[in-house]
Amino acid sequence: MNLPEAVTAVSMPRSAARMADIEPFHVMQLIARAKELEARGRDIVNMVVGEPDFPIAPRVKQAAMRVLETGQLHYTPALGITALREAISGWYRTRYGVEVPASRIGVTTGSSGALLLVMGVLLDPGDQVLLADPGYPCNRHFVRAMDGEPLGVPVGPATGYQLSAELVERHWTPRTKAVLVCSPSNPTGTMIAPQALREIHELARARGAILISDEIYHGLTYGREAETALAFGDDLFVINSFSKYFGMTGFRLGWVVAPETFVLDVDKLVGNLFISAPDIAQQAALAAFHPETVALLDERRELYRAQRDFLLPALKDLGFDIPVVPEGAFYIYADCRRFTDDTYAFCWDVLEQAGVAIAPGLDFGDNDPRHHVRFSYPKPLSVLQEGVRRLRRYLEGEEVKR
Amino acid sequence: MNLPEAVTAVSMPRSAARMADIEPFHVMQLIARAKELEARGRDIVNMVVGEPDFPIAPRVKQAAMRVLETGQLHYTPALGITALREAISGWYRTRYGVEVPASRIGVTTGSSGALLLVMGVLLDPGDQVLLADPGYPCNRHFVRAMDGEPLGVPVGPATGYQLSAELVERHWTPRTKAVLVCSPSNPTGTMIAPQALREIHELARARGAILISDEIYHGLTYGREAETALAFGDDLFVINSFSKYFGMTGFRLGWVVAPETFVLDVDKLVGNLFISAPDIAQQAALAAFHPETVALLDERRELYRAQRDFLLPALKDLGFDIPVVPEGAFYIYADCRRFTDDTYAFCWDVLEQAGVAIAPGLDFGDNDPRHHVRFSYPKPLSVLQEGVRRLRRYLEGEEVKR
Repeated sequence: MNLPEAVTAVSMPRSAARMADIEPFHVMQLIARAKELEARGRDIVNMVVGEPDFPIAPRVKQAAMRVLETGQLHYTPALGITALREAISGWYRTRYGVEVPASRIGVTTGSSGALLLVMGVLLDPGDQVLLADPGYPCNRHFVRAMDGEPLGVPVGPATGYQLSAELVERHWTPRTKAVLVCSPSNPTGTMIAPQALREIHELARARGAILISDEIYHGLTYGREAETALAFGDDLFVINSFSKYFGMTGFRLGWVVAPETFVLDVDKLVGNLFISAPDIAQQAALAAFHPETVALLDERRELYRAQRDFLLPALKDLGFDIPVVPEGAFYIYADCRRFTDDTYAFCWDVLEQAGVAIAPGLDFGDNDPRHHVRFSYPKPLSVLQEGVRRLRRYLEGEEVKR
Repeated sequence: MNLPEAVTAVSMPRSAARMADIEPFHVMQLIARAKELEARGRDIVNMVVGEPDFPIAPRVKQAAMRVLETGQLHYTPALGITALREAISGWYRTRYGVEVPASRIGVTTGSSGALLLVMGVLLDPGDQVLLADPGYPCNRHFVRAMDGEPLGVPVGPATGYQLSAELVERHWTPRTKAVLVCSPSNPTGTMIAPQALREIHELARARGAILISDEIYHGLTYGREAETALAFGDDLFVINSFSKYFGMTGFRLGWVVAPETFVLDVDKLVGNLFISAPDIAQQAALAAFHPETVALLDERRELYRAQRDFLLPALKDLGFDIPVVPEGAFYIYADCRRFTDDTYAFCWDVLEQAGVAIAPGLDFGDNDPRHHVRFSYPKPLSVLQEGVRRLRRYLEGEEVKR
């Protein structure tokens, strides 16, 4: 086969259009700098990464080791091993008092896998998903990756940084296909009121759209238990994760609960895009629901609560404005307009000058990110105390300079 | 908020259009039936599932247990832990004699994750990817999932069931963005000649498109070593896996090598869609390249070879037509027109009558699937022998009936 010589040197194909809309995590450079400083011997108080700080629960570890011992790890059914789907169904029964048949539960590769599947089975090019801004950056990117359009709805203290039916209605368009609610929220740690969630569910249903309830921080709540949207009906998607409350980040495991009519779609999409979630993670997760593990995880939740109870008033005392009490997850989203109009520069300066790493608002959306930062607090109290001491010195010095 | 009462009861939203084009695995029902028969005490010779039959290599197992012992498993950098990316780079150096910088290697959640990422960074709605038919069903579904159009190119014995530059040129359209070559192939086990792969690479390059080389069955070849497409240039994608040669299916781990210009896109897409591949899998995979593990895996390859060397002539002797010697993977794709014009019905009958489970061609594309079946042979020789005995009895019985 002969090629015309004139065309042998052309440029590489361009990236897909979606890549221009999918942003990198801006905080990554700051994290890299923090590591660089640490490598040079500087002590950094790291309140950036949203990850539990505890070792794997003993029974989960033992379960993983037992299956490793057998040497037998394989692909599993696409929706996960039956025993685990049944255990998750049991969790809904005992923890929430809600009946969710195992047949509607699909085990996924992290809640990331679940979000990708839900957007994949739902979205045609141009379909819109309404979601809160600020919010977890990946959520809008899952929508865009599957060629949908994420429509960020600015939320603030008035609604506890959560969507409301009124906000949803105001931003509704003929192309709205789904509404994504994340409660407790990353980055704000705030929760939606059950009544508000119920109203959003009814609004979506009335308009032929669907509610997606991201419940990955359930279990990590410090005032009231979070209510699952599954209590309101079976015509919605629920996303959950073994990474946060269950502390299994390094296994990459989550789950999705789908409406009956979407189960076959989810099944074939997970089979095609993932084959299955990791067998070792699934086998280990079987021990996550053991009463001993749950008791341990609930104890850990009390430690998170104590961390929040220390950090929240301490930050307010420093002059950060935190208008809504974060009732869950392990984040505090603080308004910093008293200190800066550019939290990206502020966070870099705080890192360099004070040795404290916090996340600028920039990654969490377009809703006034330059006035906000996120503190991630799953750290020993002594570390948080040191962080506050350093911030105080830094902010007092800044005041002197001004 | 008041809802107009008339609209409170409407139907669920419909599935995305892509779901109509993404087929379930037809073989799944047959697999379920085989399990059902086994549960009833019937012995089934299972030559359906494409999965190694060996336990995890001892050093890989030990590495996983060591990291479990520490209890510390977390998210990793999006592209994987540095030591593993460097180990993969070293694998290209020692196994292929090709220099591939670790910076271009991204560790993924199975090769499934790698394929999703490559299609995600490349494809706009309507962009076409050329691929061989028959082929692995998920490949065309990855393209469709990211709103591209898979264009199956019928291949047969004349090109060893592989694409050629001539075939690619004949099926080229203005919307062709990429060519996907899988060698060794699933379902045919056949390999592309290095010269043919080189010509396809040059053709794609000349037309501003890109080659994607799926090399997940590398290492499992029985005549000549497979040559990586990376030997021809750095302006192409390579997909690989820890599931096949390395035998780590249950960990879900693979990798992608991207052209320099696409590394940032891959990085941000994996970060957003996956966060990272499982930490435990990555830590375990560090031991996959240890000389002791490689020696063991190469010994296992000899067992696969012996299985093929038994099954190939035995099937021919039974009357299956296998016009091209499968030189790799662990599959034999057989033409059955001597026995049937409907291998889907044939496979069900073989399962029920003979107790042998094999895969009908239906899942592998539109190119004469009703005349083909796939045998998956990673089984002890005694099992394969029993399978052949049963097939012989079945086929002789059929002849008598005719």
